[in-house]
Amino acid sequence: MQNVFDILKLGEPAILSPYSPAKHEITTPVEYFVSDSHRILNNIEVDLSQPSPSVPLENLEMMELAGPRQKIFFDPTKIRAGIVTCGGLCPGLNNVIRSVVMSLWYIYGTRTIFGIRNGLKGFLKEYGFPPLQLTPDDVDNIHSQGGTMLGSSRGGRDRILDIANCIMNMKLDMLFIIGGDGTQRAALAISKELRERQQKIAVVGIPKTIDNDLSFVEKSFGFETAVAKAVEALAAAHTEALDAINGMTVVKVMGRESGFIACHATLASNDVNFTLIPEIPFDLQGPNGFLTHLERRLMSRKHALILVAEGAGQEHMPVSAETDESGNKKLPDVGNFLVKEIKKYFSSKPYEVNVKYIDPSYIIRAAPANPNDSIYCYRLGNMAVHAAMSGRTEVLISRLHHQFIHVPISLAVSRRNVVDIHDPLWRDVVQATGQPMSMKNSAVSESRIL
Amino acid sequence: MQNVFDILKLGEPAILSPYSPAKHEITTPVEYFVSDSHRILNNIEVDLSQPSPSVPLENLEMMELAGPRQKIFFDPTKIRAGIVTCGGLCPGLNNVIRSVVMSLWYIYGTRTIFGIRNGLKGFLKEYGFPPLQLTPDDVDNIHSQGGTMLGSSRGGRDRILDIANCIMNMKLDMLFIIGGDGTQRAALAISKELRERQQKIAVVGIPKTIDNDLSFVEKSFGFETAVAKAVEALAAAHTEALDAINGMTVVKVMGRESGFIACHATLASNDVNFTLIPEIPFDLQGPNGFLTHLERRLMSRKHALILVAEGAGQEHMPVSAETDESGNKKLPDVGNFLVKEIKKYFSSKPYEVNVKYIDPSYIIRAAPANPNDSIYCYRLGNMAVHAAMSGRTEVLISRLHHQFIHVPISLAVSRRNVVDIHDPLWRDVVQATGQPMSMKNSAVSESRIL
Amino acid sequence: MQNVFDILKLGEPAILSPYSPAKHEITTPVEYFVSDSHRILNNIEVDLSQPSPSVPLENLEMMELAGPRQKIFFDPTKIRAGIVTCGGLCPGLNNVIRSVVMSLWYIYGTRTIFGIRNGLKGFLKEYGFPPLQLTPDDVDNIHSQGGTMLGSSRGGRDRILDIANCIMNMKLDMLFIIGGDGTQRAALAISKELRERQQKIAVVGIPKTIDNDLSFVEKSFGFETAVAKAVEALAAAHTEALDAINGMTVVKVMGRESGFIACHATLASNDVNFTLIPEIPFDLQGPNGFLTHLERRLMSRKHALILVAEGAGQEHMPVSAETDESGNKKLPDVGNFLVKEIKKYFSSKPYEVNVKYIDPSYIIRAAPANPNDSIYCYRLGNMAVHAAMSGRTEVLISRLHHQFIHVPISLAVSRRNVVDIHDPLWRDVVQATGQPMSMKNSAVSESRIL
Amino acid sequence: MQNVFDILKLGEPAILSPYSPAKHEITTPVEYFVSDSHRILNNIEVDLSQPSPSVPLENLEMMELAGPRQKIFFDPTKIRAGIVTCGGLCPGLNNVIRSVVMSLWYIYGTRTIFGIRNGLKGFLKEYGFPPLQLTPDDVDNIHSQGGTMLGSSRGGRDRILDIANCIMNMKLDMLFIIGGDGTQRAALAISKELRERQQKIAVVGIPKTIDNDLSFVEKSFGFETAVAKAVEALAAAHTEALDAINGMTVVKVMGRESGFIACHATLASNDVNFTLIPEIPFDLQGPNGFLTHLERRLMSRKHALILVAEGAGQEHMPVSAETDESGNKKLPDVGNFLVKEIKKYFSSKPYEVNVKYIDPSYIIRAAPANPNDSIYCYRLGNMAVHAAMSGRTEVLISRLHHQFIHVPISLAVSRRNVVDIHDPLWRDVVQATGQPMSMKNSAVSESRIL
Repeated sequence: MQNVFDILKLGEPAILSPYSPAKHEITTPVEYFVSDSHRILNNIEVDLSQPSPSVPLENLEMMELAGPRQKIFFDPTKIRAGIVTCGGLCPGLNNVIRSVVMSLWYIYGTRTIFGIRNGLKGFLKEYGFPPLQLTPDDVDNIHSQGGTMLGSSRGGRDRILDIANCIMNMKLDMLFIIGGDGTQRAALAISKELRERQQKIAVVGIPKTIDNDLSFVEKSFGFETAVAKAVEALAAAHTEALDAINGMTVVKVMGRESGFIACHATLASNDVNFTLIPEIPFDLQGPNGFLTHLERRLMSRKHALILVAEGAGQEHMPVSAETDESGNKKLPDVGNFLVKEIKKYFSSKPYEVNVKYIDPSYIIRAAPANPNDSIYCYRLGNMAVHAAMSGRTEVLISRLHHQFIHVPISLAVSRRNVVDIHDPLWRDVVQATGQPMSMKNSAVSESRIL
Repeated sequence: MQNVFDILKLGEPAILSPYSPAKHEITTPVEYFVSDSHRILNNIEVDLSQPSPSVPLENLEMMELAGPRQKIFFDPTKIRAGIVTCGGLCPGLNNVIRSVVMSLWYIYGTRTIFGIRNGLKGFLKEYGFPPLQLTPDDVDNIHSQGGTMLGSSRGGRDRILDIANCIMNMKLDMLFIIGGDGTQRAALAISKELRERQQKIAVVGIPKTIDNDLSFVEKSFGFETAVAKAVEALAAAHTEALDAINGMTVVKVMGRESGFIACHATLASNDVNFTLIPEIPFDLQGPNGFLTHLERRLMSRKHALILVAEGAGQEHMPVSAETDESGNKKLPDVGNFLVKEIKKYFSSKPYEVNVKYIDPSYIIRAAPANPNDSIYCYRLGNMAVHAAMSGRTEVLISRLHHQFIHVPISLAVSRRNVVDIHDPLWRDVVQATGQPMSMKNSAVSESRIL
Repeated sequence: MQNVFDILKLGEPAILSPYSPAKHEITTPVEYFVSDSHRILNNIEVDLSQPSPSVPLENLEMMELAGPRQKIFFDPTKIRAGIVTCGGLCPGLNNVIRSVVMSLWYIYGTRTIFGIRNGLKGFLKEYGFPPLQLTPDDVDNIHSQGGTMLGSSRGGRDRILDIANCIMNMKLDMLFIIGGDGTQRAALAISKELRERQQKIAVVGIPKTIDNDLSFVEKSFGFETAVAKAVEALAAAHTEALDAINGMTVVKVMGRESGFIACHATLASNDVNFTLIPEIPFDLQGPNGFLTHLERRLMSRKHALILVAEGAGQEHMPVSAETDESGNKKLPDVGNFLVKEIKKYFSSKPYEVNVKYIDPSYIIRAAPANPNDSIYCYRLGNMAVHAAMSGRTEVLISRLHHQFIHVPISLAVSRRNVVDIHDPLWRDVVQATGQPMSMKNSAVSESRIL
Repeated sequence: MQNVFDILKLGEPAILSPYSPAKHEITTPVEYFVSDSHRILNNIEVDLSQPSPSVPLENLEMMELAGPRQKIFFDPTKIRAGIVTCGGLCPGLNNVIRSVVMSLWYIYGTRTIFGIRNGLKGFLKEYGFPPLQLTPDDVDNIHSQGGTMLGSSRGGRDRILDIANCIMNMKLDMLFIIGGDGTQRAALAISKELRERQQKIAVVGIPKTIDNDLSFVEKSFGFETAVAKAVEALAAAHTEALDAINGMTVVKVMGRESGFIACHATLASNDVNFTLIPEIPFDLQGPNGFLTHLERRLMSRKHALILVAEGAGQEHMPVSAETDESGNKKLPDVGNFLVKEIKKYFSSKPYEVNVKYIDPSYIIRAAPANPNDSIYCYRLGNMAVHAAMSGRTEVLISRLHHQFIHVPISLAVSRRNVVDIHDPLWRDVVQATGQPMSMKNSAVSESRIL
């Protein structure tokens, strides 16, 4: 029976892997290879109060461990590999590119590696971006820069057939696709098209989501760096709020559908008074509305710092019919909206207020990866190459419970990772900010408010 | 004859200064005191091709050296001092406050020091900001934070009489005013009012201008830090431009009337392609207009980075009648304007462009001072206290040719420091960016353009 | 039957917790409390090739989840709490202190909180360090500084009875002990002594080990910051090696018995050529010895970067009989030793070499916590207070599989966390450096060396 | 009459400079060229109490302004240029290399540019370092790294004839030598040798001295960055001192004969209690000795931070006969010496002390240049190329009173820049630390000590 955790393979791996971590040694200890029977459990929580005397193993959700296999599917010296980065920038993209190229070249001896330029559009003839042939020299120092040496773009996802044609024309045997939710859906469609054409081409995704919103991905690469850069902006915002008469600063960070950056930055900064995220709707007006709570805060402490994720509060703004090329709905700017609403609300008050707005988004996403993200990206790239060499396809490399694993792309894109109002993360954000658990008038009976 | 460089004094200094750099020693070497006859030359350039066999000393422009005097005017243990910070934030404000308080307390033994809160408004009863009494403990660690522990505001300049009343009610003997051009004009007016009332109150200005636009101030405190923070934003902007298809990023930095931050950040970053400053007007359209040159750049290198000072290009935008409380004309946002114009210009082109906009202003101005600015602020605060103790008034502390000097406030506010098109600074910016010396169609004959 | 994972409790919790994350709300959603029956699995790896059709739940290793309990043991407004930091500095100490104090004060309403100064010695009368009474104001900004506001020391562990006396004299109800392996052993002994005296005092440990060597602790607080600072030193070391003729730089980092900092810094830096850790002994001389491999590297690339953990290579140095006050054997300086051995080895070669040594240890351990460590420390402090309030004792707060858990101190100190030669971490270090898996002559048959 | 400020020229400049800051314009405004008659005054201080009614111009010390000349000596498209970096590392070396190469290539059209590797040894056949031919691509990103892409070394100065031979064999027309005092002496000797051989080769020095000890150099490049890095080490050292029982930390920084880094780092850090520099000898023992003052400080504040320049206190240590290849006397490590003396002194005291030692020298000198140093280096490189093109030789590029100038190498090496005990810099250091002006027992009469 097909299990949703099962990983698709292009065929039986029959080639002995040349993998050896140490260049000058010919025998690799067997312990350094990962066996296909290695799994880790997805759900690790147990409630002892529930009546479950034993757990049948086959019923457990289990994820396949990533890593080098002793036998591989492709002859690594004969294959041609491609790598492409899609969507918005994220810290660590260059580290992942570097790691994939280095792993292909030095671990497996692959010599034909193409960097597709500017995202999926790089596959489309009319854009005229010839692929770059990559060697270790080309990527050796790229990790000291933010962004992606290949360039990136949204769009191209509606051109699955053309992309498949290009991949076949380039005679690629494996394609590494670094991108988010939408990109991985495209990766899946491309791979299906190629499989229908009987092509044995491994499509391996490396999940890139600065919002941390991909499910089965514990913490996406670049996320920690993004939080750290957001904290720098918050420090400036706090200073601006403190130093003005009734100063209020609104800071907007990434987070279209998930407020993870906002929540983590709140916990790291200690200075945020209101954290607004897409998952927790709020009212502006009314006794339990945001503006009432903001005024209360302002009266007691004379300043306030508001952190808002870009997807928060969209219910208060006109819906846009427009989408960007990633297919994402264009979101009205909630930061500007809040600033306007705050100014309007306080304009009738008999005191001066000073409202400022900081949008550090580009500074956050274009930053180079911090050391911890660098390690993560290095290992992600390794694991992606091991997975492709083993013949796995339509698979994402992910990390769960501190282990690298394989996740079917179809599973990963089937739902989103979001902050739950009952999650300890949100609980801790509420505690750290001093804001109410919910700022919906209806959600809270009067009696609950002190 | 009154010389414009002469410094006003409240009276003859007759008290032996308690100044000793070393706490446990009672005799201070005479070399550590500055004599009133010490001057430094303002103009240090000589053109040997000019016929000037000798220079009469009294005709030279000379600035009085700042520093501790052996005899002082005030009895430091009996006086009451005030300190106030005005206008927008700037790196180093807390360092200056700290240095003034520490110098008063430890060098001179003054024990009654007031911090006026939130700028000149802190002198006005209706705002209800009681002054803080400051001790070394209050200021010991403030320099690790950006901003000003006292708060700041614009406005209050039209209330000279009320401010003078408040100063008299507080029985202040000396007032340290940290602020820019407008603030220093107000300081002058306040001092004149106090003098007319026969008050012996020293008013000492510490010039704060992140734009570096005060004349007779070689480099204003916080300027280097501001440039360094701007360079960080430029790195992100460059990455965003490089990584998008025909990517262009516009970065706006401070500089209402002077483009120093933009020019220095350009030289430090190496990545800027167009630097637009208030002093050098430019055309948007036409064969020598900005947009034509931008397109040329884009065609040859596929990306462009544009750095614009906030006061640049105002001639292209509707004049606003509004002013802020500092009396500054409200400037329309030139960054947004440029983005709109660029998008419009390229909308008719048969290729995709991606235009982004970064405004790091608040992140720049709220940063803590870097080490070099810290040293500068430490010494500025020292010198201000020495000047006030000696009975000098209506004087700014400045640095010229690496020496700390006294400048009459009236002289300093009489003109602005600007980037000249014939200055080596602008020459080097043109060279570093590759942009034309001027992007006015009229200014350059066709023949000059290659 | 007593299970090694069972947590000791002082008694039945009978008091309704005042815990509410939101200050102005009186009802806390039940989901925000953690039930005592919540567990997470310790071992999450499964090998499907093993015959294990089902797993009896009671046989699984399970850790109790940390977090707020609905019923608590202590009346929080009546208790007296103490907090102490022991051993060497580590990034994040101040964040943990801050979080414990803030949680006690704001979440539980506890008003009597003592900071014990300078480690366990602060309990000993002869040192004369009176405890500090702590309020939120005292700790509000300490996290911007490295180190610990309480001071720290080694030693005092042989004075269990005196410490117990002091705790009783201070009438403490709970004690938070932040320290490493040795400190936690002392905490256990203190608690046992107090229990024998029938005292109901909660002793809660917060594991501090910059070496990351405590078992059942996934990643210790401050570790990421330490790695990041080590990477900065490695960048300088790499530059020094590259720019000299046959340049070699040795960098020493912390790691008495575990090489985690060295391994992670290696992966993050990309520039290290040899990583030497305590867990993997090496020969200096011989065909497979370190010096031979170093020479080979130098000949091919003209420079080398060597990263050594302080506990590595101790087998080559004279054993010291001395111990520090933590009871740790005093380790001879392996960095200096290696530099000497390298110089000796190359002194007979017909070419110039340049060997430099960098020991950034104090700069690493005195750094303030980075944002990710700040979040971690914030939550550790919260969890410690929840645990103590619930009446748990002799318990460490830890994080496993991204969840906060309780670990019996006795279990945590029963073994050490080390890098295993067959662990993917070491495999990846070998791969990243290009060094052999082992540099023991005996360990590797000739045939394995290419 | 030959004036010591006169600059040597290889001949009459007769070629029209192709210099234009703007690439697409053919006419360069005359204001952008510097005339040979432009000078700036060296001494800018005036004492009005002295009887000097007028100053004959020809008696003034005047420095020639650096910058592009309208007529140049060399045909830039035909010449061959060399560049070499010598001595210890310093922040900004790569920036200077980059600027020289970029200026030669883009401003003057020179296409044959050699990078001499590993200092003067790169000229010596037996070392076997072939020169690198440099293009803009080679240097485009080097400024993001510390150190020098060319490598560096001490030594080779005793091989003037061989170096001259090599320069002639390479057919170089101009040589840019980046190095300190000793290197510039060698540059002078090389140039004299070449002149004796009737060679028209411009030798232009760019002064590199992290110690800031070259005279006629206001502030050497990299100095600010070095101070900033030293301040980081001081922050860690301060934390270590504060957090230990009677903690004392000694930090050693560069400064063989001049204590500028130590003095500036002291003023920037605010935490140093004793600053020891080569220029101000001190006694260890005795009533006014360092150790007595250290004990007094320790007793009153329970911790102390000591900053020592490497050349300080050498009078207390055995003189070494050894020199390094730069001809510098090998200095015994004053940091270790002080730690030992402090431990010895306090060993007889009835209380515990904790003494730590931090030597951040390599981390300081290998850092990349900060933005302000980047600007400085960019302009230094420009000016050096302009000077060489104009036919000047045996000249250093320097900055004085914020202007770039030419200094004859012979003048610059004739004396050193040192901190004077009567300089305001030392006065401010004494004031900031609270240490005595002098810690010599003999220098201060008893009566002067309180």
